[in-house]
Amino acid sequence: MRIEILCTGDEILTGKTINTNYAWMAQRLGEAGLEVVWGTTVGDDRASLLSAFHQAAARADAVIVNGGLGPTVDDLSQEVAAEAAGVALKLHADWLERMEGWYARRNRVMPPNNRKQAMLPAGCEFIDNPIGTACGFAVDIGRARFYFTPGVPREMKKMLEEQVMPRLLARAGTPGVARLKRFHSFGIGESRADQMLHDIEAMAPGVKLGFQAHYPQLETKLAARGADAADVEALLAPVEAEVRRRLGNFIVAEDTASLESVVLDALRAQGGSLAVAESFTGGAIAGRLLNVPGAEALFRRGVVSRDAAQLAATVGVAAAAFSPDLAQQAALALREQSGASHAVAVLVTLDDGADGVQIGGEIAIGLADAGGVEVRQARLLGGRDWVRLGAVEMGLDSLRRRLKGLPVDEQLDFEKR
Amino acid sequence: MRIEILCTGDEILTGKTINTNYAWMAQRLGEAGLEVVWGTTVGDDRASLLSAFHQAAARADAVIVNGGLGPTVDDLSQEVAAEAAGVALKLHADWLERMEGWYARRNRVMPPNNRKQAMLPAGCEFIDNPIGTACGFAVDIGRARFYFTPGVPREMKKMLEEQVMPRLLARAGTPGVARLKRFHSFGIGESRADQMLHDIEAMAPGVKLGFQAHYPQLETKLAARGADAADVEALLAPVEAEVRRRLGNFIVAEDTASLESVVLDALRAQGGSLAVAESFTGGAIAGRLLNVPGAEALFRRGVVSRDAAQLAATVGVAAAAFSPDLAQQAALALREQSGASHAVAVLVTLDDGADGVQIGGEIAIGLADAGGVEVRQARLLGGRDWVRLGAVEMGLDSLRRRLKGLPVDEQLDFEKR
Repeated sequence: MRIEILCTGDEILTGKTINTNYAWMAQRLGEAGLEVVWGTTVGDDRASLLSAFHQAAARADAVIVNGGLGPTVDDLSQEVAAEAAGVALKLHADWLERMEGWYARRNRVMPPNNRKQAMLPAGCEFIDNPIGTACGFAVDIGRARFYFTPGVPREMKKMLEEQVMPRLLARAGTPGVARLKRFHSFGIGESRADQMLHDIEAMAPGVKLGFQAHYPQLETKLAARGADAADVEALLAPVEAEVRRRLGNFIVAEDTASLESVVLDALRAQGGSLAVAESFTGGAIAGRLLNVPGAEALFRRGVVSRDAAQLAATVGVAAAAFSPDLAQQAALALREQSGASHAVAVLVTLDDGADGVQIGGEIAIGLADAGGVEVRQARLLGGRDWVRLGAVEMGLDSLRRRLKGLPVDEQLDFEKR
Repeated sequence: MRIEILCTGDEILTGKTINTNYAWMAQRLGEAGLEVVWGTTVGDDRASLLSAFHQAAARADAVIVNGGLGPTVDDLSQEVAAEAAGVALKLHADWLERMEGWYARRNRVMPPNNRKQAMLPAGCEFIDNPIGTACGFAVDIGRARFYFTPGVPREMKKMLEEQVMPRLLARAGTPGVARLKRFHSFGIGESRADQMLHDIEAMAPGVKLGFQAHYPQLETKLAARGADAADVEALLAPVEAEVRRRLGNFIVAEDTASLESVVLDALRAQGGSLAVAESFTGGAIAGRLLNVPGAEALFRRGVVSRDAAQLAATVGVAAAAFSPDLAQQAALALREQSGASHAVAVLVTLDDGADGVQIGGEIAIGLADAGGVEVRQARLLGGRDWVRLGAVEMGLDSLRRRLKGLPVDEQLDFEKR
């Protein structure tokens, strides 16, 4: 089945808004085994839309249209869809009532403009939007089936996942339930992960392996399709277990969890609290943790300096340069000073010289808790931003390993030994 | 002139890579008065490319093709361009020599694959790429002129700005030099800025006003075209001066400068140094500053805690809750303790309750320097992330104002009074 994604709207066409909806849709469809073969972008312009609908109808079996379902005059999708399909617009009374109810529950009167959102091409298939006023619909134009979805990302995602994808899978003659299992790892490069897992698809036909590298993390994805949810779970379970076994301690989180949420959950489970000292990472470790809701109850304090003497003085010790010894001392002193159960110091000594892929930095991570103190050292290569991102990740990951009783010193692919 | 942007490549088509190239190109062209009316995305597939080239040729006057100029077998742009234009591929000997020289200077032998990058459609116009091995070219297909550009963002940007845009402007019959003047402001909303500057385009025909809001900053853009650089400067100068006069103290930086680089430059000019205490902003103020190259010489230390008692203890004072008084004390104590010439404390007391647009936070900013101490207080509304971003910006902006001798307490549009 040939699928086209057609994105509408002046904001997207003129580049004012980066088209993240397209990437999300194409990727999600691809993971479910649905292949997108063409993408089109046009503005809020009647002639362009009509022409784009006709061209897509001639090219594709299924077309997902995104945007143009709003209440304002420049939202033209329903109108042009009706014209292209050769039918009239017709009031969808149920949706009008739903919208009026939505406003009434918020003690507001529905603006008259919104009535437009209930005017759909006659004979179309209604597609529900439980979280907004732009409902979707499906209609045939030429030999292709067109699915209209709202431009608001949250609404589009929910509608695509829950309503459009099952219809596309049914149309493509593939089973009805798709699930995506995600593993987030740190320390294994994409090509090595590919080698480590190359034979995993053979374990369960219908499970598709994929990777997405967003340095310093790698996302490993298992996309599965089956007749129903139980079928998919049964298909995935042994493959999931095998991925966990092979990537082992390098898996930092799964699905919607993150490295930082895993660290905070482990800390919370132990009734612990945390203090952090950082240098070149400039507050990014504190920031990653404190952005997690509820972190404020566990994170006691953070100190930041690029100057070793200043950083040492801030935690009450003396030192002239960053070193593994200072990482150890700083972690111990900071734990004492803050009263936190755990303290981590992440110190970076950057190479001299101009920025570039050849430079690098020495990382020293001190970890102190009731069980004592340990130091993890590493050398990372690859430009200032890469060293910075790598050091943030290593700091958080070393803490995760210590909290979980895993070996802290396990070689990373990015690490120069 | 109708312009189409045609992006090629499986990474873009499948959504693995978000298409930021498209947005950048469309926006840059729009700023120069060149209107993009259609966008197409296809993969590394011969049939799709050929069909996309023919369809674009029928729709547009000028087509910018991005990607597919690399040395590997799935890079098909030159080959399919020649086929669509009805000409053969021909070796561009000069470019082959340039590539060989490029490798020789790096003491490497050019891989044989790269020869492919010098095979261009016969009779095409060569377009230089001074920073990569993928040269560009222009060729007519049907009634449209096609401009081929590399997919690597850095190379694409340079080629678009320096080579493709002048050709497009000449083709559109518009003068040859375009310049974009940018003002970054904090504290004025887009709709009010629009009102304040609505008559500014009338001052100089040929100058186009535009806005881009990326909360909490607003970017105000003046796009100008003229016969030559001097002409454009003369056109822009009075308009620039008037924008500066009207937006006044709210302009935090211009062009490629940022609020944080302006703060650091002002500090450097005074021979000063800085220490920062922050709470809910979680290290983001330190991070913004420390990401600027050279900041490490000026930034002495940062301390972070969401707990008032912890934060107070870290700087050596005592307090049980965040307050304007603690902001003042913390700034004074931190300045003393760190030996920095300037210290700023940005404290946030967040409203209780679930996250949402109705919540908000009280901001207290203490600023200490040799001239004494002052406190700026504000209430910001709008969800946790908005309050956090607003507090970071207010902290940095208050420091900028203090360093520049401007009033620190000037009401922001986002501020509830």
